[in-house]
Formats: sequence, C-alpha cells, structure tokens
Amino acid sequence: MSQPTEINLGVTADLHVHLRDGEMMELITPTVREGGVSIAYVMPNLVPPITKIDQVIRYKKNLELLAPKTTFLMTFYLSRDLTPELVEKAAILKVIKGIKCYPAGVTTNSSAGVDPNDFSDFYPIFKIMEKYNLILNLHGEKPSTNHDDIHHNNSHDDNEHIHILNAEESFLPALFKLHQDFPNLKIVLEHCTTKAAINAIEKINSKNVAATITAHHLYLTIDNWSGNPVNFCKPVAKLPSDKSALINAAISGKPFFFFGSDSAPHPLSKKSTHVNVCAGVYTQNNAISYLAEIFQNFDALDKLKNFVNDFGKNFYNINDSDEIIKSKDTVILYQEKNQVPQLIKNDLIGDESLVVAPFKAGEELNWNVKWRAS
Amino acid sequence: MSQPTEINLGVTADLHVHLRDGEMMELITPTVREGGVSIAYVMPNLVPPITKIDQVIRYKKNLELLAPKTTFLMTFYLSRDLTPELVEKAAILKVIKGIKCYPAGVTTNSSAGVDPNDFSDFYPIFKIMEKYNLILNLHGEKPSTNHDDIHHNNSHDDNEHIHILNAEESFLPALFKLHQDFPNLKIVLEHCTTKAAINAIEKINSKNVAATITAHHLYLTIDNWSGNPVNFCKPVAKLPSDKSALINAAISGKPFFFFGSDSAPHPLSKKSTHVNVCAGVYTQNNAISYLAEIFQNFDALDKLKNFVNDFGKNFYNINDSDEIIKSKDTVILYQEKNQVPQLIKNDLIGDESLVVAPFKAGEELNWNVKWRAS
Repeated sequence: MSQPTEINLGVTADLHVHLRDGEMMELITPTVREGGVSIAYVMPNLVPPITKIDQVIRYKKNLELLAPKTTFLMTFYLSRDLTPELVEKAAILKVIKGIKCYPAGVTTNSSAGVDPNDFSDFYPIFKIMEKYNLILNLHGEKPSTNHDDIHHNNSHDDNEHIHILNAEESFLPALFKLHQDFPNLKIVLEHCTTKAAINAIEKINSKNVAATITAHHLYLTIDNWSGNPVNFCKPVAKLPSDKSALINAAISGKPFFFFGSDSAPHPLSKKSTHVNVCAGVYTQNNAISYLAEIFQNFDALDKLKNFVNDFGKNFYNINDSDEIIKSKDTVILYQEKNQVPQLIKNDLIGDESLVVAPFKAGEELNWNVKWRAS
Repeated sequence: MSQPTEINLGVTADLHVHLRDGEMMELITPTVREGGVSIAYVMPNLVPPITKIDQVIRYKKNLELLAPKTTFLMTFYLSRDLTPELVEKAAILKVIKGIKCYPAGVTTNSSAGVDPNDFSDFYPIFKIMEKYNLILNLHGEKPSTNHDDIHHNNSHDDNEHIHILNAEESFLPALFKLHQDFPNLKIVLEHCTTKAAINAIEKINSKNVAATITAHHLYLTIDNWSGNPVNFCKPVAKLPSDKSALINAAISGKPFFFFGSDSAPHPLSKKSTHVNVCAGVYTQNNAISYLAEIFQNFDALDKLKNFVNDFGKNFYNINDSDEIIKSKDTVILYQEKNQVPQLIKNDLIGDESLVVAPFKAGEELNWNVKWRAS
C-alpha cells in the first residue's frame, strides 16, 4: 500500500527511559525530544536509587531545566527503604507516577532490588499503590543462578537453572500471582522480549496489565548482540520467533502493548571492554524513527500512533489536557534520510570520555521527526 | 577420594590450536609448551588460508623455530583451491595430517569456507583423504541466517532460521551423511558445545568419528559470555545442560571424546570493542591446568590422561615412538597455586598493542605443570 509521507503522532509517550544523573543526564535528557518523545517515564535506578520524596523532586527539577518542553513522569525504586506511609505521601503529593521493581542483580544498578520469588513483604506497599492508582513497573526476569559454578552444576535439566534465556519466562508465574492478588493494581511487564511474555499478557487480557516493548528488541536477536556489546542489554534479545512475537504485538493494535524504549545510555568505555560490559542499548535520539522503520516494513504505519501515544497514555491515565503536560506540541513523522550519528556527545561539556554509541550508529533510517507547535 | 598430588600425563596432545602468524605467532607459540601440551594440531585459518604445500612447510618451520620441543601437526584449509591431486601429494609427502573444514562465515577467518548444505563438490578430496588416512576436521556449525533481516523475518518457527544456538545441532545431519558416505574417513567434530552433538557422536559410535572438547566450554554457559567478550567464541557456550553433557563426555573414558583446546588468541583491542568482537578464547598457556580443575571437581583426575593423551593420539594414529615426535619429555601435573596472568605479552617484541587476555585472567588455579625429561 502507498505510504503516507507525513504522520501526526500527537503528544507521544515513551514509558521507560533511563536519563541517569550528572554529566550523562546533561548529555542525554535533551535527546528525548530530539527522538520525537514528549512524555518520558523516568527510571529510578540511580546510585543511590531514588527512594525519597526530596530526591525525586530534585531529580525532576534537574531534568526539566535540561528539557523544559519534555514532560517527566517520575518513579520510586522498590526496596526496603520504602514504606507504605512514604508511598502514600508521594502519591498524595503526586511526585511519583509509579514504582519500579528490579529483581536484585539482573541489570544496571539493580543490586538494591528485591527477591522475585517472594513479593509478600511488599504487599502493604502494593495495597497503597492500588488505592492511589500508582503503576507497578516490573523488570520481569529472575536472577541467573548460573554464574561460575563449576562444583555443583552437573545438571541435565535447564529448568533447574535460571539463565539469561529463560529468566523472563521463569518470572511470568510471579506476574500472574501479583495480578491475582492485586487485580486492580496497574502492572507493566517492562521491555518484554519473549513470545512467552506476549502470550502471558494476552492470556491475562486485563485493562490493568500491560507490557512495554522497546525499539531495539524489534530489530535484534541473539546473533546481533553476541559479539556486538553495543546491542547487549537485559533482558537480552532472544530468538527469531520471539522477535516476531514482539513485532506482531507492537503492530497488533491491542491496547496492552505500548512503547517503552528502555533507552539506556552507557559511556562508550563501558561498552568497549572485554569484561563486564554494561547492559543497555541507547535509542533515545531516534526513538520514533527506529519504530517507524519496522512499522513501515510490516505495513502497519497506521498503528504507530496507538503504540507511541494512545495506548500508553490511556494505561497511565494521562490526558493531553492534564496540567502535568509541559508542552502540547505534536510530533510529525516524515520521510527523510536520517543518518544515525556514530556517537552522541556534547562539545559543551568537554569531557571526551563521555560519549555514547547509539543503536545502529552510522546507519541510515528512512524517517525523521519534527515538532509542530500546538 | 584423596587426590594425587602429582600425575604423569605423558606426551600430551592438544588437537585443535590456533597459533596465528607474524608477531602473534611469536607471542603464542611458546605458550603451547607452557600450558603442558607436547603435540599441537595447528589450524590453517591464516590470511590467506593455508592451501599450498610450500605454505604449510614454511609455516611449520616458523613454528618449530619458536618452539623446538613442540610437535606441530599441520592442516590444510578446505576450499576450492584444493584439488585431489594436491591433497594426495601433501599426504604422500606427509606435510599435512588433516584438512579443516569451515562453513563460510561462521568464525574468525572463515570467509573462504564451504557451504555445509552440500559437500558433494569435495567428495573427490574426501576419497583421497580416506585413502591416506587424513583427518577431516569439521567446524560443525551452519552459518546464521539471522542477521539484520528486518524485512522477511516474521516467523514463528525458529527452525526456519539458523542462529548461534541451533547452528551446531543443525549441522549434525551433515555429519551423519558424511560418515555414511565415507565410513572409513576419520572425522572430528571440533569443539562441540551441545548435548545434541555429544549424543550424535555416541550414536554414531564409530572408531572413525570423534569430537574434540575445549577447556573453556567445560566452564562456560551463555551467561558467562554475554557481557564478557573475553569469553565469547564460536560455537558459543550454551546452556547448563549442554555444559553438563560436555563435562560428562570429557570424563566418560569414551575414546571418541578428546581434548582440542581451540585456544584462539586475539589482540585485546579486538576483544575490547563495542562492535564486531573477535570470536575466540585463549587458553593455551594453562591448557592442562584448566582441565585438571574440572576433572578434579568431578572426581575424575584418573581420566585426564586419556583425555589429553591416549584417545586423541590413538585417533590420529600417533605413537610416542614416531619420528615425528620432537620431544619425548612428559608432562607432570602437580598441585600448586597458579595465578592466571592478566595479560599475555612479550616484552621483547615491544609492541604494546599485542597483548592477549587469557581465560580466567587473574584467577587462581589449583594445578600447574612441569616437564620431565625423557
């Protein structure tokens, strides 16, 4: 079918972003808008993690100074530092929109996370979240049990072990249980990567349980990140059938699948290393354009606005007329050759070590974005 | 059971080594003996690949100058540059012991390789090899069909695609067919990494079909190389059940499983990079000590000599009294704290960029090796 050359995507939302702090924050925060995103849901995995009201207020203010037209929705980091009272206060003050749950040790700055085998200690917090319509954002992986164990690892059953390929699927029973125990709690399974996860969300089929899908997981499989640390992230990109399931979900028009880029910048030096590569793919500065490429290839450009605007905002109960929306400018997607830069850097900051290699660096995309004043 | 503190492993053999050329060859070749290996079967994937008699003679001479007490067994690279006449001449002159077959594009310097879907063009060569008892060494992976295909990859069946996890298992039918068509041809499935491959070798159960197992694949699973390019190799280390199958095969005492380290050095700069990391794990300088650790953990130190000496040499029809054996010195494995160096380097060469990060750099092993004069 003939492709439109310009699409108005409205006030877009990326419901999973990592903006870091310090100089990295200064470098990355303006690229949210460059990439065609108006509303950004900001992850709390700083060092130390965000668990205090003054901390989240200060962080948001810093972000707004760097990108005054971008709307930042803020989160707490689920940990034992949180109390039901604190969460209730934060909800009443409207300083957070949700709480992010990291299983301990699965990804960047997750060492303060929780044990996904037993959430019951946090049930008082979930009760408060349900009451105040706060979102529970799940990093849906069980921690690997599979590191450097040369003594007691002589097993023939892979299900005895959690490894990076079954870590997400192994987490799904915990998702079912949470939804069963808190049917009115809004839960997002973040950056899902498997056919099994897509099937789980469809099976639950609730207005209260959704999944975000990144841009890079629509492109990558295991072959693409093995040997290419720039494409390495957690959860890792998996098999061709998983990628297909994600693409089909993204273009399905089903309201429980929407966009969360999980754009996760790391200094190049933390990616160009032979040990302990940081997990994360940076996609922020071309977030919408990466998606447009895939949606076009599958003749689904007409579904893109749902994915990057309506579905996520409906789930988060955000309205364009809300006072929290900083700018009503709309994003126009248009056809234009658009070369991804080799590196994201800020000549003003002057720190040459602070450069980030973006996803598909140097490659040419067919779509670009511009802003139309409201 | 109580462990012996010293084991005489005899004249050991590593039936799969990469010694490269130029300065890397100068750096690495002496480490064969340092690692406790007497006989090394040398891979031909230089640039250009080794396909000529004068080339292999020159290469062998260079290696012997660097390590006069090490016995080097040489190979050709299977490609269209080889003819049955050339292979026959090389066999009669005894300049090669076997021929290595790389599927095109699967690993370091394999772009000149063959199409594993159809070996029939090489059948005249295999016939000559069978006649002269030359070994056919197979890199047993089908090339991935899974790179950067965003257009026609909307598939739900992973078996439609070859990816790094099923590449070895997908190759196994080709192994069965080769053995069926050339039952007297000696075939080695190199550096096998899957339970499926182990099962295939056991099923074939022939004195003419064997598999080599590396040291690093007895330690690693997918979690260990994701995010650690130093541990990335082809075929990639797979799941816990696969690792267990490899360990069980190595300690089984079955004669068709023997040691080939596939030690594959790369300059650190080719491992510490965010794109296009070279595949290969360097284990040569502690080859036997890495193995001893595993064999000890599984109470199988009594099986180590079979694995690093008898089984491989029997398969290759090598006798300690052969004139080709350069030194009859034997390898003594003994208990000693043995720290793996952070980097392999040669201060005499002076090229600071030519350093190699070894497997388990900086870690402490419990075993070391020394040589006893014959």
